[in-house]
Amino acid sequence: MTLTEELKSPLGLIAGNGSFPLEFVESAQRRGLSVVAVAHTGETDAEIERYVDQCTWVKVGELGKIIKTFKKAGVKQAFFAGGIKRIKLFGGVRLDLKGLSVLSKVRSVKDDAILRGIADEIEQNGIRVLSASILLENSVPSEGLLTSRALTAEEREDALVAWDAARAIGALDIGQSVVACEGIVTAVEAVEGTDAAIRRGAELAKNAGVVVKLCKPHQDLRFDLPAVGTKTIEVMAECGVTALVIEAGKSLILNRQAFVEKANNAKIAVLAAESKKYLLNQ
Amino acid sequence: MTLTEELKSPLGLIAGNGSFPLEFVESAQRRGLSVVAVAHTGETDAEIERYVDQCTWVKVGELGKIIKTFKKAGVKQAFFAGGIKRIKLFGGVRLDLKGLSVLSKVRSVKDDAILRGIADEIEQNGIRVLSASILLENSVPSEGLLTSRALTAEEREDALVAWDAARAIGALDIGQSVVACEGIVTAVEAVEGTDAAIRRGAELAKNAGVVVKLCKPHQDLRFDLPAVGTKTIEVMAECGVTALVIEAGKSLILNRQAFVEKANNAKIAVLAAESKKYLLNQ
Repeated sequence: MTLTEELKSPLGLIAGNGSFPLEFVESAQRRGLSVVAVAHTGETDAEIERYVDQCTWVKVGELGKIIKTFKKAGVKQAFFAGGIKRIKLFGGVRLDLKGLSVLSKVRSVKDDAILRGIADEIEQNGIRVLSASILLENSVPSEGLLTSRALTAEEREDALVAWDAARAIGALDIGQSVVACEGIVTAVEAVEGTDAAIRRGAELAKNAGVVVKLCKPHQDLRFDLPAVGTKTIEVMAECGVTALVIEAGKSLILNRQAFVEKANNAKIAVLAAESKKYLLNQ
Repeated sequence: MTLTEELKSPLGLIAGNGSFPLEFVESAQRRGLSVVAVAHTGETDAEIERYVDQCTWVKVGELGKIIKTFKKAGVKQAFFAGGIKRIKLFGGVRLDLKGLSVLSKVRSVKDDAILRGIADEIEQNGIRVLSASILLENSVPSEGLLTSRALTAEEREDALVAWDAARAIGALDIGQSVVACEGIVTAVEAVEGTDAAIRRGAELAKNAGVVVKLCKPHQDLRFDLPAVGTKTIEVMAECGVTALVIEAGKSLILNRQAFVEKANNAKIAVLAAESKKYLLNQ
């Protein structure tokens, strides 16, 4: 049975921010599958309305409304695509009754715990939650160099320092990205986002550095994988960060072709590594 | 033998930034000990010249000049006080021959490795390097609450989250401070400094949070201990961070009396804890 046969149309899409939800819809439609999207006010790109069969807007936390929308449309399989800024937890969240009951059961406010609580609740309503990456094979890089330029020896040294730090902060669910320069960690991402961390780290190192963005070691792969895109390359080029290492098999590259082109034009090296050892041997 | 008898005047002071070098000089003079200071251009408060018997200005990295100054003055015991911004490693460092030879032997550019290399070199010239905190007993807090207000249950929860993160980043020599709010780490300090990390974390949490500043687990206590002072409290008060946890026995409080007064006025809770367990039982 092919992937497309296994998937039961319409697919339910829980859309967050960025271009990942749009790529998901495009990929589904290329396979002849229709999509029922639930978009988040203040997060999801409004463009999505033009591409999906049905789009319902919710506020972050309106879980009951998501489940009702999917059930009414006959959705049997749902997917998370695109992040919800964690910062919203500090305001702008409107929990409906279902959202409230799920969050009150969640024992940790860490991202994964919340998402797992939401996924569990959706599954209890007869809808399976799957990894969006299964539709986006080409967006998930396998191990190897993505750009024409490889990392220099110095960049690799800095990437190794950043790798260790990124693993440690991922294990504590603090963030995904670390910037390093000349053997020193210059920025650690918490809730400010990757672009802000890259800018800060580069500025402190006087426009230099490399960035490593990794998946959390215990990440549920159905949720928001670490994503990079053309915007990431633009930010790096602007502030002098010259190399990017992402995790093979556990990262998403949005608009991959444009991403690689932009990196090559900016002479930025991008490597997907499954392990520190692979990075070491580059 | 009292401490003062053990110390051989003049004491050598390798002065970094902040008010810690001045407090060191004041404390030494109160005990009748004279101080020969080596101050760092662009780092050390020029006020120091007014208080010490002898002050020589060096650029960061001029280790040979430091040793020469101390030997000429008959210094037998030297102390580091005040940090040197790591950021300077990315520019503005002028290594003299001795500095170059030490740094070329250091296998890591991490703070402690560099400082240990420098201390070893100084000791090889017959000058013992001691912990400045032995002169500043009152500045090193023992376990307990320092302010009239204790941490609330919510602040304690956030402090526990920040504690774990601070331990992890300390172990990797990334930084000392972490800000948390509502169970989420909102900022991790790398080279930007504690004040900048506090501001960022608080802003992302819409003016809230607690900060934990810990010593690195393997820190050589002769070097730059995590320091807090009235400026820390001012920054916290300005941006809505309500509680501070520092490490008992391994932190410096600069201008302690003013620090505690300012914290009480701002209704900020400050706790010195030796362990997570102590924090938990508060």
